[in-house]
Amino acid sequence: MRDVAIIGVGMNKQWGELWDKSLRDLFVEAALSAIDNAGVDHIDSMYVGCMSSGLFCGQEHLGALMADYLGQCPIPATRVESACASGGAAVRAGLMEVACGMSDIVLVGGVEKMTDVGGDEATFALAMAADQEWEAFNGVTFPGLYAMMAVAHMHRYGTTVKQLASVAVKNHANGAKNPRSQFPMKITVDTVLSSVMVADPLHILDCSPITDGAAALILCPADQARKLSKAQPVKIIGSGQASDSIAFHSRSDLTTIPSTAKAAAAAYKMAGKKPEEIQVCEVHDCFTIAEIMVTEALGLVEKGKGGPAVEAGETAIGGRTPVNPSGGLKAKGHPVGATGVAQLVEVAEQLRGESGDRQVQGARVGLTQNMGGTGASSIVHILEVM
Amino acid sequence: MRDVAIIGVGMNKQWGELWDKSLRDLFVEAALSAIDNAGVDHIDSMYVGCMSSGLFCGQEHLGALMADYLGQCPIPATRVESACASGGAAVRAGLMEVACGMSDIVLVGGVEKMTDVGGDEATFALAMAADQEWEAFNGVTFPGLYAMMAVAHMHRYGTTVKQLASVAVKNHANGAKNPRSQFPMKITVDTVLSSVMVADPLHILDCSPITDGAAALILCPADQARKLSKAQPVKIIGSGQASDSIAFHSRSDLTTIPSTAKAAAAAYKMAGKKPEEIQVCEVHDCFTIAEIMVTEALGLVEKGKGGPAVEAGETAIGGRTPVNPSGGLKAKGHPVGATGVAQLVEVAEQLRGESGDRQVQGARVGLTQNMGGTGASSIVHILEVM
Repeated sequence: MRDVAIIGVGMNKQWGELWDKSLRDLFVEAALSAIDNAGVDHIDSMYVGCMSSGLFCGQEHLGALMADYLGQCPIPATRVESACASGGAAVRAGLMEVACGMSDIVLVGGVEKMTDVGGDEATFALAMAADQEWEAFNGVTFPGLYAMMAVAHMHRYGTTVKQLASVAVKNHANGAKNPRSQFPMKITVDTVLSSVMVADPLHILDCSPITDGAAALILCPADQARKLSKAQPVKIIGSGQASDSIAFHSRSDLTTIPSTAKAAAAAYKMAGKKPEEIQVCEVHDCFTIAEIMVTEALGLVEKGKGGPAVEAGETAIGGRTPVNPSGGLKAKGHPVGATGVAQLVEVAEQLRGESGDRQVQGARVGLTQNMGGTGASSIVHILEVM
Repeated sequence: MRDVAIIGVGMNKQWGELWDKSLRDLFVEAALSAIDNAGVDHIDSMYVGCMSSGLFCGQEHLGALMADYLGQCPIPATRVESACASGGAAVRAGLMEVACGMSDIVLVGGVEKMTDVGGDEATFALAMAADQEWEAFNGVTFPGLYAMMAVAHMHRYGTTVKQLASVAVKNHANGAKNPRSQFPMKITVDTVLSSVMVADPLHILDCSPITDGAAALILCPADQARKLSKAQPVKIIGSGQASDSIAFHSRSDLTTIPSTAKAAAAAYKMAGKKPEEIQVCEVHDCFTIAEIMVTEALGLVEKGKGGPAVEAGETAIGGRTPVNPSGGLKAKGHPVGATGVAQLVEVAEQLRGESGDRQVQGARVGLTQNMGGTGASSIVHILEVM
């Protein structure tokens, strides 16, 4: 298995409600940005992470479509889908294609165009990450599912609504320093608690937004990185993925995300790293409770202590383990297929020292955690600057 | 790159309008059949090829869903989509996961549940394999697109409607010997030519059907195949994939499928084989004209001679190069995400000598060709019995 490095990163200039950009426009802009960042003159293969372009845009077959509009035919091009973990799954597919020697230079992109449909349709499309027959059909939505997890966590560990709100406050503070953010405004705990209730105890400011956006990486064998690119290479030293029952009724405990714990264990083992060696990370804060449960599952904080940790600033930039310096899904935005790729864009830039006002000083090892549904899929990557 | 072998194959007992089986039922039945065929006691990872479960069934996130219903959580599980080449793309993903050493035993399945929606909705969903903005939005359907290719081929090479019909006659004759076939009845050239016209010159019997079905393979490192399984192992000696412009307006020639020619060139090179060494193959006969153009692109017949070759029986069982002994998409059925996987099921069984009445005698090297859209994606695999 060859070691694999990231030699290029790219995103749209800004994520948000981008009504003047189509699905293909979004992807091509991010992909060209990554190709330009790497400085490569060709790519051998590409992957597109996307959850539900069929329902959002009436378009499947995104691999060929994007290769075409990127001017890259006849290279192999494939779409990968794992709900909101589609981006992370695309990264893992590209990693294995380089690792096995099938290709040298692989573009991994993620994209979602979510605002061409109304809110009801978007809620319907996103619910397809849950169990259609047992959850979605009966009217369950994602804010409702995560609200149940929040209530369980509050009941068992005493987690408070102020601690949930503290996640949003931290991530918007970080996102305010990120020019790509959809919602780059600082907020307070009071702003969150006085915002409209979506699914008790989650207010609208506990929820990540509906977003249009794309992100892309260029991967190559680590031993060719310095020859192929002038950019500072970042090695992917660990990759782990795990699944869990798609519906809540098959789980024994709603306060944990076992797939994240298992994906992390595999990634830590492959990387030869421990949680305390992670200096910066991007995690899947689709709802504020998710970030709390994920930091626990990753071993960054003790089980049940995710709430107090964020309240105490341990996961802020400058804290013990900065989490979501980009602003996370909460402030940067959450175009579901793009999120898992954008997490690696942020961590790679952090490890290169290119993150400006939101730079985590001296970070050399970082982690990304991307999640589908209520944790039925989790994908964790660990990165180290070369 | 480790060599990879197929050690288990499985499908539903029969493909067709399976109204008593859901999307997950179909997949689990085929997957259990492949696991049983291999005789393995666990799997390390899995892939699900599926084109449009979102539109057909209101369900995305198929990797986790199928891992769950197959009782295989917490293994990594990912969906792969390349329109009607989704199955082939899933095979290639599984191949690379084993080849790079990430996993040893990988299940690759494909599934599509297409009959829970009406004909108009199915046509709408399938049109998403084409360019939504330039083709589908303007009302183009797949029979219409392939009809244009047929007219161009007839104009340039003198291909006749009787030659098109001969593809259907051959494939239904083969399919009549396949207990899994959706339409296992023999037909004649007259039956085809007197069937209802769908898009001139394609009659309904020139078109593959709408089908519910699934197929699955178990892959492992070739050097562990005999230890892991009592089944006769079949090595995947070549894999190629290529893309092409998604819409017709960007192509210079409608009489060829360049992505198939390029994917085949890569697979032949990797395998160290030539077209004349292929003893059996399964190709993507979504419409009769497709099989003619594909046999030309694969180098099995001379350019422009695909029509006369099928009429002369060169591609029949017992002919020079038997094509679609399973009955192909035409007779066996075409659950789009499953097709590319089922092609390898058929060729592996042929190479093992397990194909009963439709056995191609003495075949040791076979090929599969799976295609998305009008050839915007093509994936070719070459198999050899160990």
